Amino acid sequence: MPPLRVKASRAWRSLATLTAQTKPDQVRVGDMARATRSFTDADVASFAQLSRDSNPLHHESGVASASRFGGRVVHGMLYGSMFSAIIGQLFPGAVYVSQSLRFHKPVVVGDSITAEIEVKEVGARGRLLTFRSDCLNQHGERVLSGEACALLPKDRRKE
Amino acid sequence: MPPLRVKASRAWRSLATLTAQTKPDQVRVGDMARATRSFTDADVASFAQLSRDSNPLHHESGVASASRFGGRVVHGMLYGSMFSAIIGQLFPGAVYVSQSLRFHKPVVVGDSITAEIEVKEVGARGRLLTFRSDCLNQHGERVLSGEACALLPKDRRKE
Repeated sequence: MPPLRVKASRAWRSLATLTAQTKPDQVRVGDMARATRSFTDADVASFAQLSRDSNPLHHESGVASASRFGGRVVHGMLYGSMFSAIIGQLFPGAVYVSQSLRFHKPVVVGDSITAEIEVKEVGARGRLLTFRSDCLNQHGERVLSGEACALLPKDRRKE
Repeated sequence: MPPLRVKASRAWRSLATLTAQTKPDQVRVGDMARATRSFTDADVASFAQLSRDSNPLHHESGVASASRFGGRVVHGMLYGSMFSAIIGQLFPGAVYVSQSLRFHKPVVVGDSITAEIEVKEVGARGRLLTFRSDCLNQHGERVLSGEACALLPKDRRKE
């Protein structure tokens, strides 16, 4: 599996360090990370099959092209999964607590999507992290906004 | 692609009718639909590949079995996609506006998950539907709760 290339902003350096088994008390509000990828026709077809989502916007090129979106629309839950992919890579073993997703603009096959998370709150003695979570397209437009919350594994605190 | 078998409750009959191109003004608050499926090892592996989510809880049987979950954990965004699958099947062409997801209990490979949506609000002259959206496991435990919002296609109103 090709891992997502997660890029740390300057503020995010503490989190990158945390991934290398340093203590969660180094996580600071404002720390950020992002990753960029695009979704192919094959990705959309695979997810349609996997999720059994038969909405024609996703899998019928004719219908999708004729729609106001101008192409096959990528499933929101597919690019929305970039947040948990980033969190899972930075914090192996982290448990997803919640995620909110508000879809502002459609994402079509081939768009380059940057998912960005930023620490908003650090709770439960450093174990419970709340993030702002946004996706931007290649034009810098916000296509998705929301909030993610994840619980770090207990044993990370002892290392 | 095997479609999700969406079951309508009695109250949901109007929505089932709506799917067969009747008018959205037949949708009523309280209308419900549900679908049940389980997720296999292959499903989890496919989604890990597709989402590039390398969290060991999902793809390392050893780590996952040793964890408090007792098995490979199904990605939240994967079973969370049952809501959009139901909505897409009932309302082809509907656009996802938002989805909130709160994960209460882990779902492991083989669990039988029932996703249920219930109309909470009907707005924008019948086009904007807000649903309660929950997932229950085979023990009747709520594993996921949240809210979904979808916009029906304009031309559905003219039919």
